[in-house]
Amino acid sequence: MPRQELDLQQDAALLTAALVDLPSESGNEQPLADAVEAALRPLPHLTVDRYGNNVIARTRLGRPERVILAGHLDTVPIADNVPSRLDGNGVLWGCGTSDMKAGVAVQLRIAATVPDPNRDLTFVFYDNEEVAAHLNGLGHVAAAHPDWLAGDFAVLLEPSSGQVEGGCQGTLRVELRTTGQRAHTARSWMGANAIHAASPILARLAAYEPRRKVIDGLEYREGLNAVRVEGGVAGNVIPDACTVTVNYRYAPDLSEEQALAHVREVFAACGEWELTVDDSSGAALPGLSHPAAKAFIEAVGGEPQPKFGWTDVARFSALGVPAVNYGPGDPNLAHKRDERVETAKILHCEERLRGWLTA
Amino acid sequence: MPRQELDLQQDAALLTAALVDLPSESGNEQPLADAVEAALRPLPHLTVDRYGNNVIARTRLGRPERVILAGHLDTVPIADNVPSRLDGNGVLWGCGTSDMKAGVAVQLRIAATVPDPNRDLTFVFYDNEEVAAHLNGLGHVAAAHPDWLAGDFAVLLEPSSGQVEGGCQGTLRVELRTTGQRAHTARSWMGANAIHAASPILARLAAYEPRRKVIDGLEYREGLNAVRVEGGVAGNVIPDACTVTVNYRYAPDLSEEQALAHVREVFAACGEWELTVDDSSGAALPGLSHPAAKAFIEAVGGEPQPKFGWTDVARFSALGVPAVNYGPGDPNLAHKRDERVETAKILHCEERLRGWLTA
Repeated sequence: MPRQELDLQQDAALLTAALVDLPSESGNEQPLADAVEAALRPLPHLTVDRYGNNVIARTRLGRPERVILAGHLDTVPIADNVPSRLDGNGVLWGCGTSDMKAGVAVQLRIAATVPDPNRDLTFVFYDNEEVAAHLNGLGHVAAAHPDWLAGDFAVLLEPSSGQVEGGCQGTLRVELRTTGQRAHTARSWMGANAIHAASPILARLAAYEPRRKVIDGLEYREGLNAVRVEGGVAGNVIPDACTVTVNYRYAPDLSEEQALAHVREVFAACGEWELTVDDSSGAALPGLSHPAAKAFIEAVGGEPQPKFGWTDVARFSALGVPAVNYGPGDPNLAHKRDERVETAKILHCEERLRGWLTA
Repeated sequence: MPRQELDLQQDAALLTAALVDLPSESGNEQPLADAVEAALRPLPHLTVDRYGNNVIARTRLGRPERVILAGHLDTVPIADNVPSRLDGNGVLWGCGTSDMKAGVAVQLRIAATVPDPNRDLTFVFYDNEEVAAHLNGLGHVAAAHPDWLAGDFAVLLEPSSGQVEGGCQGTLRVELRTTGQRAHTARSWMGANAIHAASPILARLAAYEPRRKVIDGLEYREGLNAVRVEGGVAGNVIPDACTVTVNYRYAPDLSEEQALAHVREVFAACGEWELTVDDSSGAALPGLSHPAAKAFIEAVGGEPQPKFGWTDVARFSALGVPAVNYGPGDPNLAHKRDERVETAKILHCEERLRGWLTA
């Protein structure tokens, strides 16, 4: 395949279309990473590094603050929605328009057109965000070159409908397993029913009052829920095992360890069970009290919201960099066959970021 | 295959071996049914009827009481355990020895050698007991020729280790389904958790005190148990459905309708659920107060026990014929590769029945 070239002088909407037309499903980001690297290398105000299909470009202006603009290069699998198509209403259709090539286009435009920003800038373009966490390029860079990701504040240009979403909840999933003793149901007194033994766990969940915690002015609502329950051997057998899978979504004032301790505490009086951690991803603090973040909020406007899902802002948070989501796409259109983005929102996002970085 | 002949003059142990050596896995009972019919037809004191692979033989002596001796001809699949083998300790090994060709041998011996019994006799040999209920030959005969099964008392020669087991529990299996509303667990307040909604059902089950009911001197212990619980969509989704499968084993003073009404009543205060009946098989009264049954108990000795599993005695009960299990095999050896029976127990069983029917 001949190398594709990206023209960073065209507007962010046209650039988004060009990015969509350069397919980059997870695992196949190399052509796009090559094009991004090739487009940034000639820019004299940027130092460009590459690790796998992850491209990092930095200014070295000696500013007192450094902010990071980050976005992933990959998309979910194409579903008959490439190449892109611009309709008569200024809406651009196609795979990755919303999630998140519109955001990547804004990053590239700022990189190319703001050579003298008021804060040092780090641009991060990474691969494999849409697949298993262990493949995530941002995670790989964080492990191999944490210095490349140093900064005071990060903006992840994931689709957020142009609204600032601060930090993110943590998520912990555990399995609580109760045990019993098999017997024929006709002689149930010979056995011990593990499903009945799970009853106090479900009762505790049903009665649980989730916390609401305000951090940096954002209210994080927690949740503790059974997401699966499974038990049973046969229609005439007292079951000897039952597993309740519980998902705890928690506010970013708790560490992963504190979240797990809380869950153990919640079920402490619910009989005997064995706990297995199925999945754990720490929360991210919004960091909105940081000067760079305050200026950012003022520049982009609107009322910041807490982020309820888990996103890569948590990876920055784990590196000690407060982070927010702010991007032109609509998160509800991500991963859909009819994925699309309003081009006016792309230009608006670019303009607001430019305003913040050049004021 | 040449017709196999059964010699009813040999003792019940040898006859059991001959029956085992004439394979009759469920669905393939015809050669054995043919052999049984052929062996009984020449006996002048018996009228023989046949329906499918079910053979019914009756005396017509005008006695004031009629008792039924019943057994199934089929076995579970053979597992390298045919032909039969008699070891040096008088133990006969092979598929169906215990369940229940030993019992069938006793039936055939009584049929052949008690031409002038003190009660009219009906011998029932039926097919497809070891498979799905709708295939059961006794059920087919009951539906097509209920008059062939008329009687005052029935003995089913299923393995019971030579102990009288009276009547049987009923069994009802229902699914209780709770519903909710899906949502992302990060925004759990947007949904309604169906697993949490099942919590009162499990709590009620865990607290339930099963009844003990004495009927004809036999104590029937009931049981109400969750045998399966299932719910869950994905690790980050509030589940919108949960199903608890409940098995109620009840004493034979309740009808199927009463059992179902009881279950509905038990869970009446447990929130909203939808009930589906998964399986229902009525109980059987032991009928031990009937004169023929009293005489039977006296003749065979021992302390009658309640039957906790569900057996075909319930089919007789549904026809208004009290019934018990009484057979030479050991129920714990049924369906096993090392299935076997003590030949002395076969002879003992035959002797006791002969005593009862000729006293």
